[in-house]
Amino acid sequence: METIPCSIPVNVGFTVPSKVSRANKPETTLVKVGDSEFGGSGIVIIAGPCAVESQEQLFVTARSVNNSGARILRGGAFKPRSSPYSFQGMGEEGLNLLSMIRSETHQPVVTEVMDTRQVEMVAEYADMLQVGSRNMQNFPLLKEVGMSKKPVLLKRGMMATIEEFLNAAEYILNQGNENVILCERGIRTFETSTRNTLDLNAVPMLKQLTHLPVIVDPSHGTGIRWMVAPMAKAAIAAGADGLIIEVHYQPETALCDGHQSLSLDEFEELMRGLKKIAEAVGRSIS
Amino acid sequence: METIPCSIPVNVGFTVPSKVSRANKPETTLVKVGDSEFGGSGIVIIAGPCAVESQEQLFVTARSVNNSGARILRGGAFKPRSSPYSFQGMGEEGLNLLSMIRSETHQPVVTEVMDTRQVEMVAEYADMLQVGSRNMQNFPLLKEVGMSKKPVLLKRGMMATIEEFLNAAEYILNQGNENVILCERGIRTFETSTRNTLDLNAVPMLKQLTHLPVIVDPSHGTGIRWMVAPMAKAAIAAGADGLIIEVHYQPETALCDGHQSLSLDEFEELMRGLKKIAEAVGRSIS
Amino acid sequence: METIPCSIPVNVGFTVPSKVSRANKPETTLVKVGDSEFGGSGIVIIAGPCAVESQEQLFVTARSVNNSGARILRGGAFKPRSSPYSFQGMGEEGLNLLSMIRSETHQPVVTEVMDTRQVEMVAEYADMLQVGSRNMQNFPLLKEVGMSKKPVLLKRGMMATIEEFLNAAEYILNQGNENVILCERGIRTFETSTRNTLDLNAVPMLKQLTHLPVIVDPSHGTGIRWMVAPMAKAAIAAGADGLIIEVHYQPETALCDGHQSLSLDEFEELMRGLKKIAEAVGRSIS
Amino acid sequence: METIPCSIPVNVGFTVPSKVSRANKPETTLVKVGDSEFGGSGIVIIAGPCAVESQEQLFVTARSVNNSGARILRGGAFKPRSSPYSFQGMGEEGLNLLSMIRSETHQPVVTEVMDTRQVEMVAEYADMLQVGSRNMQNFPLLKEVGMSKKPVLLKRGMMATIEEFLNAAEYILNQGNENVILCERGIRTFETSTRNTLDLNAVPMLKQLTHLPVIVDPSHGTGIRWMVAPMAKAAIAAGADGLIIEVHYQPETALCDGHQSLSLDEFEELMRGLKKIAEAVGRSIS
Repeated sequence: METIPCSIPVNVGFTVPSKVSRANKPETTLVKVGDSEFGGSGIVIIAGPCAVESQEQLFVTARSVNNSGARILRGGAFKPRSSPYSFQGMGEEGLNLLSMIRSETHQPVVTEVMDTRQVEMVAEYADMLQVGSRNMQNFPLLKEVGMSKKPVLLKRGMMATIEEFLNAAEYILNQGNENVILCERGIRTFETSTRNTLDLNAVPMLKQLTHLPVIVDPSHGTGIRWMVAPMAKAAIAAGADGLIIEVHYQPETALCDGHQSLSLDEFEELMRGLKKIAEAVGRSIS
Repeated sequence: METIPCSIPVNVGFTVPSKVSRANKPETTLVKVGDSEFGGSGIVIIAGPCAVESQEQLFVTARSVNNSGARILRGGAFKPRSSPYSFQGMGEEGLNLLSMIRSETHQPVVTEVMDTRQVEMVAEYADMLQVGSRNMQNFPLLKEVGMSKKPVLLKRGMMATIEEFLNAAEYILNQGNENVILCERGIRTFETSTRNTLDLNAVPMLKQLTHLPVIVDPSHGTGIRWMVAPMAKAAIAAGADGLIIEVHYQPETALCDGHQSLSLDEFEELMRGLKKIAEAVGRSIS
Repeated sequence: METIPCSIPVNVGFTVPSKVSRANKPETTLVKVGDSEFGGSGIVIIAGPCAVESQEQLFVTARSVNNSGARILRGGAFKPRSSPYSFQGMGEEGLNLLSMIRSETHQPVVTEVMDTRQVEMVAEYADMLQVGSRNMQNFPLLKEVGMSKKPVLLKRGMMATIEEFLNAAEYILNQGNENVILCERGIRTFETSTRNTLDLNAVPMLKQLTHLPVIVDPSHGTGIRWMVAPMAKAAIAAGADGLIIEVHYQPETALCDGHQSLSLDEFEELMRGLKKIAEAVGRSIS
Repeated sequence: METIPCSIPVNVGFTVPSKVSRANKPETTLVKVGDSEFGGSGIVIIAGPCAVESQEQLFVTARSVNNSGARILRGGAFKPRSSPYSFQGMGEEGLNLLSMIRSETHQPVVTEVMDTRQVEMVAEYADMLQVGSRNMQNFPLLKEVGMSKKPVLLKRGMMATIEEFLNAAEYILNQGNENVILCERGIRTFETSTRNTLDLNAVPMLKQLTHLPVIVDPSHGTGIRWMVAPMAKAAIAAGADGLIIEVHYQPETALCDGHQSLSLDEFEELMRGLKKIAEAVGRSIS
């Protein structure tokens, strides 16, 4: 595992908030989700569909990514969509399906929570709560998941500075929940050929400033299926502690994000490539 | 009043959602808040402190901006702050103070709501509900204020495209509440000498694409007190239907945004300047 | 004329270079181009086609904008185009046409220079040399126009901070040429519905930091014909000392920028509207 | 070596110009600089100081990076600096020093050319001409290096889209010079903790759209010394054909970019790490 040069003074022009600061807690926080651990020498891969769409879609996809080596299953039941007329997710029925397939594959489940009123209910089904990009500065929601005992996957806002990202995490830690994983997922720039600009600079910078584990979402960070593999490799080379990848058993029919979802075979092939990169930086795919 | 050249075909590369689209409803929607009307020939000025801090601060400021010609009082009771350690607002006590001063000055009150669980309670106190920048894509909140009968002041996200802004408004209209006012408040760019880049292009563009009234926040749009006056004038010249301006009786002691708040005298002087600009574009300060 | 609050301390996080700094020279520099003066109480309007395309196109357009009140004629002979296959300008033949129409209308001419090797030649024809956005940090070119005796119109780079813009101007003054006019022309942001985001915040900010006159280009700043008028008005309300506007006698057939060029009638109508705004801020269209 | 999935249709919303397009020439162009070849299975590392400052500085640095495995020496003699008061480079004396050390180490030299009038002279000394970020759309310069027979290292403008980047390269190819290497060096975004945001998405995207080799500059792309190593590794994992890295024998005394320059030891250590990553993606450091 790469050692973080903690002794190097970093002047980034702002003060890292106290509870997330590596200066105050030099060793990386290990966040356990089921049997997997984020922040150690192993790299943890999360995979699954953007949204839970049906039992068949979820179960076929989940079994396949599990076999390919994904340790955690992702799948949205409540979907934040720019338009009110887009598919908004299956809701609690989707959570039920996630829970059913977990009994079979024993993969822990991460799913998004969007509303303070849903945190308690979602936490009953999920092993990790995701706070999405658009909610990175939804402060009541941050406080609510901070009061939960579940690990939290906090995605960087597409417009958020690293300072704001760390402060958002501080809201969660400040409520007593230290099990927070940060996720870089692409930021908004002038470039239009990709959906977002994946800011991999954020990986070594965050690892330097905070003791929290850092993962990367190359699916949203590119928005283009054939770019997921090279950018997933780049993320690991940059020092990421894990990846979250959209996979769909039939990407061309997906109700959301099909253009950026890997097929089952593409994901399996990617996992093989990732192992070599992990070894090259002294780590392993756990 | 400037006429909007509705017949000009606009190709902006996206489809304007149906309920907010001016193509589907050519006449501007008039949104009434108390006795004031947004979207007509009169320009409505909203003023007041960033946050309610105390009875004295609120009452002195409110009386003064009322005398200077502000038709609506602003004041935050629940404050979205980047850091959990910043002043988070007075909460319901702040709402109470807003309600007390309204009985005296008869100015309607606009205040921010951040949490779906608070909408009902805030709506009991406020005449208009504000959805802040960071919540522009908090879809459960948009749906909740859409079910309210109160007018909604929807601020553009600091990194939201105009397409996303219109879709966020569509969420509210889609729940049956058409009383939505859009507010340009500055976007995030590479420029660092100002807090945000006030995107006044958004004013004629939004007026063209939607029938909803459009106002501008030059306080957040610049972040610098002495820039508020020229940019407030520019906003009216560009066609804005109103302004929302931060004013504080003692800006140097303000608990938030003091550097961008006008003093009582500065606000009074600004109001005089605005009247001339309004006349120059065939409108009036109502 | 609006007075600039020079006594207000401004902390913008950088040091304004010495020769352009208003702190070192409080009174605004008056830049004379022919009989017109930039930086005084009068607002100077520059108009004309994006590119010189033919004698008829140039002469008809020039006569008309002259009659409508434009004091200076613009027209490109050397055009910086993103693609090598786009029209690159008429070159010296275009300069000749500009010179011919000037003998008739007595309007001074501003035209772009792109190459250090052309500065001497272009300066023989032009009354003011334009350094375009893409060349704002072409330092050899800045030095070369700094050694010329002609006034220089320096356009802000579409990616340039205000700090960099002021340093680019400093390059010119440092060679002994103080006749520099700064032009805000829109910056690049994530917003795609407009060609650029016109940063009118830059107007009061630049007026505060430097003694050089500041003008605005609402044609490039919006990229859309019907947005030119409201944004031209907004620019004057924000404190601009002048405008530069693209006008074409047949916009729909223009070889470049037709979508953002005003017709002759639209420009005439705009000039009437601008006069009222100028008066509202205590100035006049000179 | 990674194969590029050329058969995948890519819809990026623009037309790739014809001469740079991979659709028109599927096999990657091999660009030879001295004995090194960009675009093949070997990854070529360019290293050296930001600017040539003195014989000692250049020679000590050049010998060391040569021993560590850098195949090409970088060093600026003409420096584009934001301020006219910053060190502007040693000029032709610097070129002479580059030429002297080349006779000793036999490393080819790449150095920047800023002015059309200098191209011929710089080409006499250099093995590859660099066109810097600020000149990516200096079209006369692009044409001039296009008429040269030397390979060209074209750096992406810090706010250039990929479409504009490809069109800038097209200007060079259109003059008959196909030996162009594209360099991603970070773009300008709202993020301020790093000097630029290194856009590694650009690597697979460019490799897909064009047959030209693509390299990465992690020094400018981060602006921070300790971030160079992880981002250099990430660049190779993403598919880059080479790297250009700033190295200085005494970074703390460098006249420019010392904060982002590696020491001689740091560079040697980095080279060891890069070899493992190259192998992990089926390539080698040549």
